[in-house]
Parts: sequence; structure tokens; C-alpha cells
Amino acid sequence: MSFKSEAASFKPEAIDLSHHLSTIAKARQTSPLKGLPSPAYFPFSDISGSVLAANSFPVDRNEGTSSFSWFWNLFGGGKERTTSVTIPKYPTRLSTGLPQLQKIVKEYSDKVYDPAYGNYQTLLHAGNTDAWSKVVLTLCNPGDGVLVSKWTYPSAMASMRPYGMVPVPVDIDTQGMRSDALRTILSEWDAEARGMPRPRVIYAVPIGENPTGTTTRVARKKEIYQICVEDDPYFVLQEGTYVPKSQRARHTQNPAELDDEKFIASLEPSYLKFDYQGRVIRLDTFSKTIAPGCRLGWYTCNPMFAERLERAAETSTQAPCGFGQSLVAGALLEWGYHGYMRWLKALRLQYTIRRDFFVDCLVDEFHMTTAPGAMGTMWDGAQVYQGFANPQRSLTGYFSEKVSTTSPLISFVPPTSGTHVKIHFDQHPSFGTMDTETLEMKLFIALAEVGVLFGPGAMFSATGDWSSDKSGHFRISFSSAENNEMKKAVQIFGKTIREFMSTPQI
Amino acid sequence: MSFKSEAASFKPEAIDLSHHLSTIAKARQTSPLKGLPSPAYFPFSDISGSVLAANSFPVDRNEGTSSFSWFWNLFGGGKERTTSVTIPKYPTRLSTGLPQLQKIVKEYSDKVYDPAYGNYQTLLHAGNTDAWSKVVLTLCNPGDGVLVSKWTYPSAMASMRPYGMVPVPVDIDTQGMRSDALRTILSEWDAEARGMPRPRVIYAVPIGENPTGTTTRVARKKEIYQICVEDDPYFVLQEGTYVPKSQRARHTQNPAELDDEKFIASLEPSYLKFDYQGRVIRLDTFSKTIAPGCRLGWYTCNPMFAERLERAAETSTQAPCGFGQSLVAGALLEWGYHGYMRWLKALRLQYTIRRDFFVDCLVDEFHMTTAPGAMGTMWDGAQVYQGFANPQRSLTGYFSEKVSTTSPLISFVPPTSGTHVKIHFDQHPSFGTMDTETLEMKLFIALAEVGVLFGPGAMFSATGDWSSDKSGHFRISFSSAENNEMKKAVQIFGKTIREFMSTPQI
Repeated sequence: MSFKSEAASFKPEAIDLSHHLSTIAKARQTSPLKGLPSPAYFPFSDISGSVLAANSFPVDRNEGTSSFSWFWNLFGGGKERTTSVTIPKYPTRLSTGLPQLQKIVKEYSDKVYDPAYGNYQTLLHAGNTDAWSKVVLTLCNPGDGVLVSKWTYPSAMASMRPYGMVPVPVDIDTQGMRSDALRTILSEWDAEARGMPRPRVIYAVPIGENPTGTTTRVARKKEIYQICVEDDPYFVLQEGTYVPKSQRARHTQNPAELDDEKFIASLEPSYLKFDYQGRVIRLDTFSKTIAPGCRLGWYTCNPMFAERLERAAETSTQAPCGFGQSLVAGALLEWGYHGYMRWLKALRLQYTIRRDFFVDCLVDEFHMTTAPGAMGTMWDGAQVYQGFANPQRSLTGYFSEKVSTTSPLISFVPPTSGTHVKIHFDQHPSFGTMDTETLEMKLFIALAEVGVLFGPGAMFSATGDWSSDKSGHFRISFSSAENNEMKKAVQIFGKTIREFMSTPQI
Repeated sequence: MSFKSEAASFKPEAIDLSHHLSTIAKARQTSPLKGLPSPAYFPFSDISGSVLAANSFPVDRNEGTSSFSWFWNLFGGGKERTTSVTIPKYPTRLSTGLPQLQKIVKEYSDKVYDPAYGNYQTLLHAGNTDAWSKVVLTLCNPGDGVLVSKWTYPSAMASMRPYGMVPVPVDIDTQGMRSDALRTILSEWDAEARGMPRPRVIYAVPIGENPTGTTTRVARKKEIYQICVEDDPYFVLQEGTYVPKSQRARHTQNPAELDDEKFIASLEPSYLKFDYQGRVIRLDTFSKTIAPGCRLGWYTCNPMFAERLERAAETSTQAPCGFGQSLVAGALLEWGYHGYMRWLKALRLQYTIRRDFFVDCLVDEFHMTTAPGAMGTMWDGAQVYQGFANPQRSLTGYFSEKVSTTSPLISFVPPTSGTHVKIHFDQHPSFGTMDTETLEMKLFIALAEVGVLFGPGAMFSATGDWSSDKSGHFRISFSSAENNEMKKAVQIFGKTIREFMSTPQI
């Protein structure tokens, strides 16, 4: 069975309609007798939204009396600068709203990703998760393998498994998928032994991959470039290298000085930038920049892929929600391209400030040292932070004396996106009698019981296999926490892990 | 390969999490460190919509000086009665908006469909087309057959074909799928000869099925009841029997007199009403009642199916667009249940008035006679309208003398939903040298060239096969046309078909 060989829609073949398409398209616009409900019978006469000004947030870290003054202004009596965007006659405008938004996203892909070939297309979709599920069904047949990072986004794996498509894990390092490991897998592929043809598709999350938070840089991208599906919700949120608090001021570039071109140049480029053959299908979303849960984004890919993906949508999700399209287009038209760039620059700074504060909290809570990552591990070449139980915490009354202060409890590489923390379960008294996965789940539940939710590493394994070793892993997200909450959560984490690591489990 | 045997999501199995679900759910609400973007960083501080009052349209056919006075009031200087519905802090409310809407649709299914068993669930989905595609992937394996009406909604067929699921056509009559034909197919099923196991799933569009506009009545539904997917976007738009213009006044029941219970009782009930075993998955949509293109609706089905469908959504569409959910919930909360019923009663009346006017136009344009449908055909037992070329039309200057006035050009049964018109191509001079499908496509194009778009019958064949016979078919929709446009389009149709039926084709 081939998913690709069947057209998603079929047409009567009595007559070649290709010469009549413009006639039919015109009649579709003007015919009074066509299969649409009447716009007069829908209750929304207009919809509108209050949209923050594009420059609501600072792009300069030092603006105001504190980094968070914008925040307190926003909620504490300072006035929000909003504009009301109104979309009149919602149902009537639906058909024109869509082309407007199509134009906006095409311009964005043009300017921000600057693909290396000319006739690429953009196509709106209903969110990256659904977009990926349509892509994998379009590109692969049951039994095909898809090359993925060894630790990756679990929903992407879960959407292909029921169709018999198999994740083929590739080793990772601090830049995500390793190009040398990829080359070895592909060059040594034995279709018979593996029971599947050599994979043709790579699923890549080049920026802030879940759970590791790794970012793939230019040279690596050029090595990996192949047919590649680039799922990249965090592109504009690249937070750059963590600089310790004490050295921060002089290392911080003032993003306010960046014009649009410099801002784009400061981001790791998309795979599209090197895609001179139309091999890449890029997935973008508005979920991280305009509204969570809006289920709206777009593909950038070659026209052949775009046509197939459009057919796939026709028989399932159809166009994304018209309300969402109208409101997002309304905000972007209000701001214009430069306004949206201004918004994105500030967004990146705000997430960078949160990342810095979160790592600062870890540095405060643990006794922290740094060391080069061990050769041959995924942190080879990176500066690894190792967190020991901090003797000073005993003064606060919740330090357990039983925990070692000479072996690290946790280690991590400060991320450019959500944080990936390794937990040294070999320090646990039950290590050896209880496997690492079980210890990880027990710590996950112990943390949930005190109100702190981390993503357990095991759920991010591409293959669902748990390769038992000395360490467990958690994915920690700092994106939605306020400073005081973040501080408190890290203190609870410190206390909980010290207790957990000194208490035998049953 | 089985689609059903694979969980759509997978979980680490080191520990049985079932005892910890409430702890995790609570931590998900309260943990500051969780994988969601910050609500502070989204630009919509609120969204709102102007919603018509629930009683904006009359429910009494005779209200006002003409049936369409409400319409002219709406657009011609009369004032719309609208209420502004505002959803403050869109992202924050998203998580509570969803449960509110869930509660609303559950109440609606409770009261309107009154299922025959207790623990059914409702689950929001992203529109009926996508909902059906998730259902068929959940219930069927590649190679399975699905029982469908011989002529049915083409998108529903197109979404299952790429997965190797095969439509098994069942003969129809004026009530849609025939229960006797269904029984014959199932009782005589030979899995070996057919090359597939006996189908377990029925795809049913019981109200206004495309293209035939047929409605399945209670007795038939009880006969068909089985595992059945009920795709029913037109439920509240049931227009009742067409009554000729001259007899209309005394036959018309005043729907204003109907209270909510009587209104519901006046509609053909859902399959759920007889579903005492939880075999039915019902698909509802807001696309026909609140906003086209909002891609928002809900399933009503048993908890086991609901859980599987929820997993399927998690790895593809996720929740429907939050903007759409918020606005639809806002309107429904503003109206309340009784207000929504009031809105639906008026909606049904307005579509009924349009249907009546459209059939009146056909009666005016053609010389019309009625006769009982021929035995053994799909119109057996119904009153069939036969339209002949009307000699009076020659006085208007566009009558072609070559067309027969003694054999019908078209015939139809006045619909309770979009109109299905049979074209008598055996009257065509090229009949015999050119097949019916080709003639149908040529007439379709001729109509499109003069700005009238019909749905060609061939595209609605469940199997894509074209069973050549003497007639072609068109699906005509009157839902979005104004009176004067509708009148003009029917006149153009009359002129075009008279010319076409008297002109040899090459």
C-alpha cells in the first residue's frame, strides 16, 4: 500500500477539466447557487481584538529601573498600549482574510529564511503537530523509517507510529543530531537486516529541540541537509549563550541596536537558507509568538509538496479556523512587517532574561562548578554545570545531612531554550537495586506532589526504549513562570532532590 | 498492520502512573515550571465579537410585511440588535474556555439528541471532515470496507481511500441508505470473494445527504442502527416537505408556537436516540449555525471511542483553535440554551423560505408536472416533479424551438436540504454517441461559463465508478443566494439547458 500513489481527491475523468479551471474558479466566486451557507445567517457581525503595540516590551535589557519594569507596568496600573483590530462581517471577509494572511507569511519566509531556490511556496496549516502528521503521511509509506534525534519531541513520534512508520534514532550532541552519526547510519544501511529501506526523511527540530534544548548551527546544518522536515517553533526565541550574572553586563549586546537584517543575521538560519533543491519542508507556527492554542502556522516548501499537502488538508482539517486567521492577520496588518520584527526582538529578549534568571536560580540553589563535557558523550565540547548539594542550605533548616556534597546531584549545559537537566541517580542509595527509569519516575511524582512539574526524560526517547544508564533526565520549562515563582520552584526542586537522593526507595 | 492496536501516545512503563494522575493534573495547573509559553508575551489582551440577538430573525413566516423584511432591516438601515461579547485575557482564559464549551455541547447533546444510554461523552473536534478522518482511522484497518450511500459526500470518501479503506456502496431511495439493501449486502457477504472482511462500520449522513438531499426517518434509522458514524451538519436545518406556493399559507405551521421541546420533537431524531449500546459516533459542527470555516464541532459517543479520538487529536490537530472556541463559547453563553434554540428555530425557517422560493423558481421556469416515482428507482414512493421546456419562455426571446416540449428535461423531488436534480440526457441529440458522464461535464462547464456553478453528480459517486445510464445529476445549493440572484440563476439554468439539450455536442 502506498499513501503517495493515491490522490487524496478524485475527479470525474470524462473530460479534461484543466482548460476550464479559470471558468470554474470564476463561477465559484460569482455563482449565487453554490454550496456555502448564507453569510446573512451567522451571528457574528464583526470580531475584534485588542492588540498590544509592537513596541510594548523593551528590546534593551537595561531599559527602565529593572528588567521587569515593563512587566509591572503592564499589570500594575501602568497603561497597556493597545490598538483595537476589528474584522467586519466575519463570514464575508473569510475568503479575503485567507489570501491576506498567505501574503504575510510568504513575505516573512522570503525575508527571514531567504531560501536558496526561487519557486518555493507557503501554505497555511493547522499547527505544527498536525502539519508534521500530514507531512509524514505524504512522504512515507508504512514500514518506512524516519531519521530522528535519539531524544526528541514525543508527539511527533506518536503521530507516525500508528501508521507503521518507524523512528530511526541518530546520536546527538550539544548541536542536536550528529552529522557523522547520520552519515554512518546511512552509509552502512542494510535494508535486509533492518527490514526496511534506507530512510529518505529526516525529522529535525534545529532550534531548542525537546528535551535537550539543543540548537543546530550553520556548518552542521549544511552537513545534514537532505530531505528534511524542519519543525521549528522556537526560531525567533533563540536566547544565545548563557553568561554568568557577574559578567553579564559587558557581554550583553543591546538588541535595540539591531535593525531587522541584523536581527535575522543574529539567528541561526533555517535549513531553507541552504536548500537549493527544494528538499526541505519547514513548519512554522504562531503558537509561540501570537497566541497559544491558535492552531495556525504555515509550511514553506516546494510546489509539488505544497500541492500534496493542500490535498491532504482538503480531506481532513481543511483551512485553519477562520476566527484565528482573521485575528492573526488583523494583528499583523496592524503592525506591518517591521512592527512584527520589533515584537519578535522584544520577545526573544524577554525569554532570554527568563532563561538567565532561571539558570541564576540553579546556580544559587546548588553548589555549582563547571567542567568540560566528557569526550564521546552528548556534552562533548560544551561547558557543563555540575550542581552539588549546597552546605549553606543546611542553615535554612531543610538540608538533609545524608546527601553527598562531594558528588554532583545534577548537571546541565545552560540552554538556548527549555532546560535539560541530568539527574545523577548513581548517587542514590537504591541505585543498583532499582533501575534508573523507575527512580526517574519516582522523583517525577515526588516533585509533582509538591507542585512542580517537569517532563520526565523517558517520554522523549525516540524509540520508546529506555537505555538504562547512571543518569535520568528532566525537561524543565521556564517560559511561563514569574520570577518569584521560578525562584521558589527551584528551591523546592533543590530540597526535594536532596531528600530524594538521601532516601532509599521501595 | 493494525491502527487500533497501537496507542497514539506512549508512556514510560517503569511505574504505574494511574494512582498519580490527580497529583500530576494538579501540578499541571499550578506548577510554575511547565512547558507553556508565557501568557504575558502574547499580544491579544482581549478578543470580542458583536453577536446578533438570538431573536434577530423571525420564527413566524408571516412576520413583517414580507418574508424578507428581517433581511432588509438587517442591511438596509434597520438596526441590528447586537451584543458585544468580550473574552478578556485570551490566553489565560483559554484553559477555562474549553471546559465551558465542553459543558455547553454536552448539554446540547443531552437535550437535543437524548441518547438511549447514560455514560456517553462529548468531545470537541476540529470540524466534521477532520473528525470523520480520525474516526475511520480509529475504527478501521487498511483493507476494511465502510458501508456508505451509493451517492455520498466525496470528501468523506477521499479521506479514507489513501489508507486503503474501501467504500462499499449501498443502494438509496428518498430516505437515503436502504435498510433492505444493507441487510442483503451484510447477510450475503463473502469475505473471500470480496477480498475483505464483512464491514463493521456505516458512514451515514441522515439529514440532507450530499448530493441527494435525502433525510432518513425514524423507522429506517432503527433498521439501520449498528456501529454507525453519523455525520450530521444539517440536523437543525431540516426544512420539512415542500408545499406548492398556492397551498402554502394553510399548510404552514407557525414555528413561533413551538416551544423548545416541540421544536426538537419536530426534527427527525438522531441515531443516538435509539443507541442503547453506544454504537454510534455522532459528528456535530458549528459551521452551519455559528460561523463557516470555524473548524469547530464535537463528537457524541461512548467513553471508549472518546478516549481513542482524544489520543488521535493529541498527535495531530490537538484542541480546536482557541480563538474560535472562545468566541463560539462567548456567543452561546450570552444567549444561553433557550436563546440558541430560538436562533436555530429562526435559522431553520429562513432556509425553509429559501428552499421554497428556489423550488418556486423552478416551477416558474419550466413547465412542471408531478408524478409518482417509478417503482424500483431511488424515487419509488415519492412525488417527482418533472420539468419540461416551457413554451411560454419562447415569448421572452430565448426559447430554442429545437428542444422537445413533450419529454422532461429535468426531474427532482423537492428536497429538505440542497437540491438534487436529474438531467434527462436521453433527450440530447448526441445521446448514444456520447456517454452520459461526458454530457454531464459539458453541461457543467456550459453553466459555469454563464456564471452558474452546480455540483456535477459524478463527483458524488461513492466508489468513483460512473454507472452510465440515461440521466445525469446535479447538486444545487440555494443556501447562499438572495432571491433576485436565485431567480436569475434559475432563468439562466433554464435557458442554458434548453440550448444545450437542442445542440449536438462534439
